[in-house]
Amino acid sequence: MTGTRVPTPTLERLAIYLRVLLDAQEAGIQTLSSQEIEEHSGISAAQFRKDLSYFGEFGKPGVGYSVPDLIQCIERILHLDEEQPVLLVGAGNLGAALVNYPNFKAHRLRIAAVFDNNYVKIGRPFGDLVIEDIARVKEVNAKIGARLAIIAVPAHAAQEVADMLVEAGITGILNFAPTVLRVPPHVHVRNVSILQELAVLSYHAVEQSVAYADGQATRGGKDGV
Amino acid sequence: MTGTRVPTPTLERLAIYLRVLLDAQEAGIQTLSSQEIEEHSGISAAQFRKDLSYFGEFGKPGVGYSVPDLIQCIERILHLDEEQPVLLVGAGNLGAALVNYPNFKAHRLRIAAVFDNNYVKIGRPFGDLVIEDIARVKEVNAKIGARLAIIAVPAHAAQEVADMLVEAGITGILNFAPTVLRVPPHVHVRNVSILQELAVLSYHAVEQSVAYADGQATRGGKDGV
Repeated sequence: MTGTRVPTPTLERLAIYLRVLLDAQEAGIQTLSSQEIEEHSGISAAQFRKDLSYFGEFGKPGVGYSVPDLIQCIERILHLDEEQPVLLVGAGNLGAALVNYPNFKAHRLRIAAVFDNNYVKIGRPFGDLVIEDIARVKEVNAKIGARLAIIAVPAHAAQEVADMLVEAGITGILNFAPTVLRVPPHVHVRNVSILQELAVLSYHAVEQSVAYADGQATRGGKDGV
Repeated sequence: MTGTRVPTPTLERLAIYLRVLLDAQEAGIQTLSSQEIEEHSGISAAQFRKDLSYFGEFGKPGVGYSVPDLIQCIERILHLDEEQPVLLVGAGNLGAALVNYPNFKAHRLRIAAVFDNNYVKIGRPFGDLVIEDIARVKEVNAKIGARLAIIAVPAHAAQEVADMLVEAGITGILNFAPTVLRVPPHVHVRNVSILQELAVLSYHAVEQSVAYADGQATRGGKDGV
């Protein structure tokens, strides 16, 4: 698959289809129509068919898509067909939520080690793991060989952690810290910004309420404000 | 601002600028150039100037942008100029991470109530709050008047929670559950999907490693695999 780069929006949709398909598999469902995938993914059936056509021929007319076949195909594209170890940095509340997150396993993702720089925490159990010193991340990952890591530390510490992860061979970082990380071009970062999401929602939520109040006022014969 | 809808990508960038500006303010910085904003936001100076021009005239040539003025402006656009109460549903590890998240306050976001359906948890303290019964969310929010809510419950419970939140007057939902929520058109949902982010990173991280190995092999005079 090297060379034919899959565009990121397509990858994002493939990840959504995969979740829908894994849910279906767990529910014992063997085939899904593109219409059913639309219903569960929120992505149109047309887009789904277009995305899949990019990778070859799938689905049988009148029968639908084989759930296990499609899972296998998408897992192969996303390189989730083998277990992917993931390093977690930050043994706080968010780290605890991640290490106990029940849905990683179905995606063949496994938090293989957890790190912190707090000497009170290092050596303590954390989920099924023991918290290790972030200073040892390169040494530890020489054995694990993880390419993926999650940063769940405060913003002021995130860049230093990112540098250490890159040095340890990590090429994909999921960053929860509200800061922009500087990484070499071969490293991909995806940011989860809770504040940014809430700020966008704040705009929509209030505009919506104002629009609604305007509508009410207009219906009541008053001027909209 | 009603009527002139701001496009979502613009809102997302405004939220990023706001974080950069609040960081600068905390560091005692009074003015920033668009170049400095590029450096801290990862968004080009040209895009920043274009986004701002949408809302009026800002910045002085050779001086830069006034940090407090720009904060005030962006907060007004995003409706973060007054405190926004936020409901949190799900008093698990993720909920704990959110309720203790130190960065809400600078954005004038405040988790005003936390709910769960687990009778063992209801009535217990959670951060500075006491966990309330999700069955009472409408009644509780009649007093709070929140428009925003965060869903931090397992996927199978998320739709029911969303229905209750909509019934309680919520118009903006930040959803951490790995499932697609069905809501009325006046309600906005933004999804934080940890699995989706990691799946996209998985593709990039492995492709990157393969590309790197190919490069090494080519430099070594062997065929790329």
